[in-house]
Amino acid sequence: MKWLCGVALAAMLTGVAQAQNVVATGDLGLVVERASGALLLVDQSERAALARIGGLGDLSHASLVYSPDERFAYVFGRDGGLTKVDLVEKTIAKRVVQSGNAIGGAISDDGRLVAVSNYEPGGVRVFDADTLEMVADIPTGSKTIGLVDAPGRRFVFTLWDAGETWIADLSKDEPKITKIAGIGRNPYDALITGDGRLYIAGLFGEDGLTALDLWEETPKPIKVLPEYGRGEAEMPVYKMPHLEGWAKAGNEFVLPAVGHHEVLWIDGETLEETGRTQTHGQPVFAMARPDGRQVWVNFAHPLNDIIQVIDTVTKTVVHEFKPGPAVLHMEFTPRGNEVWVSVRDAGKVMVYDTRTFEKKAEIDADSPSGIFFTARAHRTGL
Amino acid sequence: MKWLCGVALAAMLTGVAQAQNVVATGDLGLVVERASGALLLVDQSERAALARIGGLGDLSHASLVYSPDERFAYVFGRDGGLTKVDLVEKTIAKRVVQSGNAIGGAISDDGRLVAVSNYEPGGVRVFDADTLEMVADIPTGSKTIGLVDAPGRRFVFTLWDAGETWIADLSKDEPKITKIAGIGRNPYDALITGDGRLYIAGLFGEDGLTALDLWEETPKPIKVLPEYGRGEAEMPVYKMPHLEGWAKAGNEFVLPAVGHHEVLWIDGETLEETGRTQTHGQPVFAMARPDGRQVWVNFAHPLNDIIQVIDTVTKTVVHEFKPGPAVLHMEFTPRGNEVWVSVRDAGKVMVYDTRTFEKKAEIDADSPSGIFFTARAHRTGL
Repeated sequence: MKWLCGVALAAMLTGVAQAQNVVATGDLGLVVERASGALLLVDQSERAALARIGGLGDLSHASLVYSPDERFAYVFGRDGGLTKVDLVEKTIAKRVVQSGNAIGGAISDDGRLVAVSNYEPGGVRVFDADTLEMVADIPTGSKTIGLVDAPGRRFVFTLWDAGETWIADLSKDEPKITKIAGIGRNPYDALITGDGRLYIAGLFGEDGLTALDLWEETPKPIKVLPEYGRGEAEMPVYKMPHLEGWAKAGNEFVLPAVGHHEVLWIDGETLEETGRTQTHGQPVFAMARPDGRQVWVNFAHPLNDIIQVIDTVTKTVVHEFKPGPAVLHMEFTPRGNEVWVSVRDAGKVMVYDTRTFEKKAEIDADSPSGIFFTARAHRTGL
Repeated sequence: MKWLCGVALAAMLTGVAQAQNVVATGDLGLVVERASGALLLVDQSERAALARIGGLGDLSHASLVYSPDERFAYVFGRDGGLTKVDLVEKTIAKRVVQSGNAIGGAISDDGRLVAVSNYEPGGVRVFDADTLEMVADIPTGSKTIGLVDAPGRRFVFTLWDAGETWIADLSKDEPKITKIAGIGRNPYDALITGDGRLYIAGLFGEDGLTALDLWEETPKPIKVLPEYGRGEAEMPVYKMPHLEGWAKAGNEFVLPAVGHHEVLWIDGETLEETGRTQTHGQPVFAMARPDGRQVWVNFAHPLNDIIQVIDTVTKTVVHEFKPGPAVLHMEFTPRGNEVWVSVRDAGKVMVYDTRTFEKKAEIDADSPSGIFFTARAHRTGL
């Protein structure tokens, strides 16, 4: 990213050409600073922080999505706050508190609608992306989790209490809701694959996971790894792994196991298990480098100072290192040459070359957690 | 995309807040206007043209790539011109004529190097993306085609005369070249898959295609469809299909056949043929919608007023329509909700909803051909 003619005033007074404040947004990103309710605006090319934007409310477990032009972020706070942040002006453009307790959100494929998943009151609310005015209210009578966008101006989400997945089609004036029962006991999170075809929910109340093929007219629940989960050995689970962190590497999925020190490999078509790789601790995120050749894994407390890198051809750990205390999140640059790592208790975001593993930069941040690059604007389900 | 406070002067004189010319670049694009050597800057969200940038030289068969921040385009002209276009300032930032006759180019995964493939003199030249100063000259003694970027600051390209593919690794100070012989007789174009793993060259001088697995230490040529090609029936070939148009739909590739009225389906892992779909004419581009559920096909002269849409599950044509005379190119919005179509002899770019097939907009353009959206910045091989 380049900056030109920063100061308009100087240009005007000296009669130079028209003042401009040029900001190209393709290589920007936001880092969640949970403790202070702020976002750190960063530049991938410069490997630097540009600004801090505060006043976001409770950002524990916060996530965000981007507008198609990569100018605005929609930030989903735990306190029900929905905040529209302007990356160019480096300010809050709009903010509404739309519920008492929320968890995650999504933006429609055309960028016109933003949806938020709520615990209290349970359901999904949909907002105009420009104005943040509510355009649809979909109560579910249940805590609602695993909200994602799907192609065709649809949102998909799951009911914790009822074990149902709902597909809301907003391509017409009135939302059309399709309800699919039998997802399982207490689904706690879900993901959609990058092609928007498979929706997979993780279960807290029973072993295994449940997949839906959204290309079918009436998707039916497909059990995945029905005998695998926290129930198997009654192991303590320090942190339920993030399903959004699930990686697709080639034709296989890589899953952080629940409660075990391993990741699981699943065939992308049959959804059958194809292997396991022993890891340093209980994995939290297993993230595929965009080319799918490597999977980077971080771990739950108290083993959360380590990252392991797994080669997807041999399914073996090829690199292990210690970025520092409390590695919370990893985000690859869009073409995978570098990775940014939040090291919360070091107060740093570290940038690494993914081939040499050399550290390229350290960026000061206040208890950093999630890192979100603007390239997510162009992806389904991110 | 939004525009704020267009006129700096007015803002200054009235004492309003600091003047800004805000341009977010995530949803922009360029349309090649070949006849006039110009580019039309377009905005996907507004479905509108914003500006025309001229002085690009010979744009027949031109292509372009984007900088990681989605601000600059590097345009590869047939006359050897390499032009750096500033989408924000809407001007030519720099231009060099780097050879007598060129065909295509690529940008490294870190965005620092731009490479151009040359016929005359044959070889690849590599330029600093900021300054356009030449940083490496790789003569091949052959017309050079099928130049793509690969992960790890590499470029891959193929020699028409010698039937060799070269991999140039520019991650260190000195380029390291790996040469792979036995690609076949007169390779005329090539592509790399989105994950950067497979490089596939089409052959003009014999049937079939040749693939390389770039994840192998020393990739060996793999013959694909060895008995299929223009030789089979000695059919007249009106236009060799673009390999860059090859689509990956789910786990299959879709190829425009050479000289036949059909597209071919190939298994993404075994590279064996899995089916054929009869089409309206000789396909030129077979482009997968980003979710992989549809493939849109246009055709060679004289049947080039039609588009057919193929469903990838049933492998059947599910929609056919006539955008107008000389449909040259198609580009999907990054999440696939719309597609932009160049209709050269109508002097229009048409925008369609990919689900309802409804026409959403027509944009005037002067003999439009290639359409390139800025989201390509974040993809390997585009």
